[in-house]
Amino acid sequence: MTTPWSYRYAHRTKTLTSSAIRELLKLTQRPEVISFAGGLPAPELFPLERFQAACQAILSDRQRGQAALQYSTTEGYPPLREMIARHISRYGILARPENVLITSGSQQALDLIGKLLINRGDRVLVEAPTYLGALQAFNVFGPDYVSLPIDDDGIKTDELDGMLKTGIKFMYLLPNFQNPGGVTMSLKRRQRVVALSEEYGVPIVEDDPYGQLRYEGEHLPTLLALDRDNLRRDNGYDLGNVIYLSTFSKTLTPGLRLGWIVAPKEVIAKLVQLKQGADLHTSTFTQMVAHEVARGGFLDEHVHTLREVYRARRDVMLAALDESFPASTGVSWTRPAGGLFLWLRLPEGLSAQALLAVAVKANVAFVPGDAFFAEPGAGARYCRLNFSNAAPDQIQEGVRRLGQAVGQMQGEPALVLA
Amino acid sequence: MTTPWSYRYAHRTKTLTSSAIRELLKLTQRPEVISFAGGLPAPELFPLERFQAACQAILSDRQRGQAALQYSTTEGYPPLREMIARHISRYGILARPENVLITSGSQQALDLIGKLLINRGDRVLVEAPTYLGALQAFNVFGPDYVSLPIDDDGIKTDELDGMLKTGIKFMYLLPNFQNPGGVTMSLKRRQRVVALSEEYGVPIVEDDPYGQLRYEGEHLPTLLALDRDNLRRDNGYDLGNVIYLSTFSKTLTPGLRLGWIVAPKEVIAKLVQLKQGADLHTSTFTQMVAHEVARGGFLDEHVHTLREVYRARRDVMLAALDESFPASTGVSWTRPAGGLFLWLRLPEGLSAQALLAVAVKANVAFVPGDAFFAEPGAGARYCRLNFSNAAPDQIQEGVRRLGQAVGQMQGEPALVLA
Repeated sequence: MTTPWSYRYAHRTKTLTSSAIRELLKLTQRPEVISFAGGLPAPELFPLERFQAACQAILSDRQRGQAALQYSTTEGYPPLREMIARHISRYGILARPENVLITSGSQQALDLIGKLLINRGDRVLVEAPTYLGALQAFNVFGPDYVSLPIDDDGIKTDELDGMLKTGIKFMYLLPNFQNPGGVTMSLKRRQRVVALSEEYGVPIVEDDPYGQLRYEGEHLPTLLALDRDNLRRDNGYDLGNVIYLSTFSKTLTPGLRLGWIVAPKEVIAKLVQLKQGADLHTSTFTQMVAHEVARGGFLDEHVHTLREVYRARRDVMLAALDESFPASTGVSWTRPAGGLFLWLRLPEGLSAQALLAVAVKANVAFVPGDAFFAEPGAGARYCRLNFSNAAPDQIQEGVRRLGQAVGQMQGEPALVLA
Repeated sequence: MTTPWSYRYAHRTKTLTSSAIRELLKLTQRPEVISFAGGLPAPELFPLERFQAACQAILSDRQRGQAALQYSTTEGYPPLREMIARHISRYGILARPENVLITSGSQQALDLIGKLLINRGDRVLVEAPTYLGALQAFNVFGPDYVSLPIDDDGIKTDELDGMLKTGIKFMYLLPNFQNPGGVTMSLKRRQRVVALSEEYGVPIVEDDPYGQLRYEGEHLPTLLALDRDNLRRDNGYDLGNVIYLSTFSKTLTPGLRLGWIVAPKEVIAKLVQLKQGADLHTSTFTQMVAHEVARGGFLDEHVHTLREVYRARRDVMLAALDESFPASTGVSWTRPAGGLFLWLRLPEGLSAQALLAVAVKANVAFVPGDAFFAEPGAGARYCRLNFSNAAPDQIQEGVRRLGQAVGQMQGEPALVLA
């Protein structure tokens, strides 16, 4: 018999929908493409020398070196858990190290949370749009999504109240500089969301990869910090309604794959069991390196630098958009106070997927909105644009090309020839 | 309200059975305990200097350093995939780099395979005993296990034939120096297993973490190599019945968390999508470091050293067992030709769990057999003993203490006082 696997065993594997962003990212790897598609930090800011010193310090010490390369505990490297607990306590969160689980990027946190909480058919409330990686992680476990729209102040809490009455397993929310929307949940809405969670007993999964990357305005408290009971101990048990996620991917480097979950210790205990089945533990070596790089206040300094650089890039992108898309084009976009993305809306009749095909020919790329909605078609007119990765002159040039591509689609040959 | 999470939301989380090995490993971390419990390599053999040089080489080169710390593709670092494809081609496997997916340890490979293949209630055939981490990874997806016993020649293929007729989703097999059994599937049985897989169209998941660590006898071909169609291309498709897993954890270091899957490219494509949802990709940095450490023939040399050291430790353990457990004790054990473990059977009436309690008081530890069986209670009289981690004199002393513990349980006070 010479039956290929794909015929012989296809019926044995689960059906997966293919990932649009994956195929896209492949296209955008050509060096001539100016890519606003990924969520990549600026690699020229990676502190290579400090990483080198950290590796040297760990590996030249026999005991530390051996520990770095050996199996370790699923919960994570204790000094790193302590560092994270200490760091977030500055923001009014009562976390102890035992409330922190180190994950292989915050993508793994989403997978573990899906595993823990989602049974097939469970209703999971998400923002519309929401982070496509969360949809991808959760999809495997078969949830039914309930989507609530966001505006410039985040999720619309007036609709949330009614929705929570209908039986929701948990809410998945990105309050800071949302991916992909670029918007930030207002303090008032944060308070309301937390109050509703408490009232209806619906837990919140708060995803906060960008919270440190604010470029203007005041830091707003996380949902975790606003949940008055959160992580407070009562009679040996932890209280709280929020499971909080963050990561080193945007503040240090993504190539280490280090994220974390902060939650009541009873939740951490269950997630630890699931993580053990998923990958035993996150690389001991990368955890020790991250700790060595971050410690002594370096991470704070480094985040300060990132804020300066990314703020400037955001401003360049916003100015370029103003220039390339005058009101007459009917294109609008969000003005993020932080993070890595803005969210652009095309005028009626224009499709983001079709625009991408034109844009890629002009060597500029972005992610079309569809991937960010649980409901097919809802994102047809939206584009996610990243402003952290490309240099300022590239951002200007990329937006110019995008303007031309839209002009071309709107039948304005003058713009195309400009 | 001050309801702790564990009361308020317990009904929302899935029920997990707690992991015996986890709690055990905690006990055995006390420095005075001689532990045969873990599956830890000997840390004194980790090539720290070579790791140091590798980190230096990567991070001192601006372009490589930036790539090492940036996001990368889900499939894995291309030179590492090429190295693995090249390496296994020495063993008669026709793998191309596109047949290789890098995973976050081979534990993640088990998780992804469970995600891809297991629907609740699917019947999965496993050896009895089998690797507890596989059971842990698969359990999340709700399989029904069908267990087939092993003997000194591996799985009993005479029983396999009938079993495969009854509808099996896939077989999970560890042909080399099985964990925990320490036994190796004979060539004849390998050929039979592969023929039955082909005949009944039941795919094989072949887990081979220890294949390189053979201390005596001839290397036997993997099931992947014996499957005559495997990875052969036909009309653009890949043929084959085997999904093969291995890892750097036992040959290089476990702390990097690097494993891989070799499979038809159509299977890899689906696993890539699942891996993207699970952790986006494995650390770029650890992949580049492993490649830099392993290349130029270093890994082969290093494996040669490991074979020498572990062979000696195995021999010390076997000799110590002969001494501490004369035939009159009724204790028997396997004599592994490679790998990290041997499998000890207690006489009727003695429980491994009970023995562990006594042993831990005497500062020696092992893993009781129950965790290695899909059926509760089947492993009550078995103990898994690791011989790679402890130094030879510690192995001797540990086995002596184990002999005393058994003697104590058998009511032989003379032995206890010896």
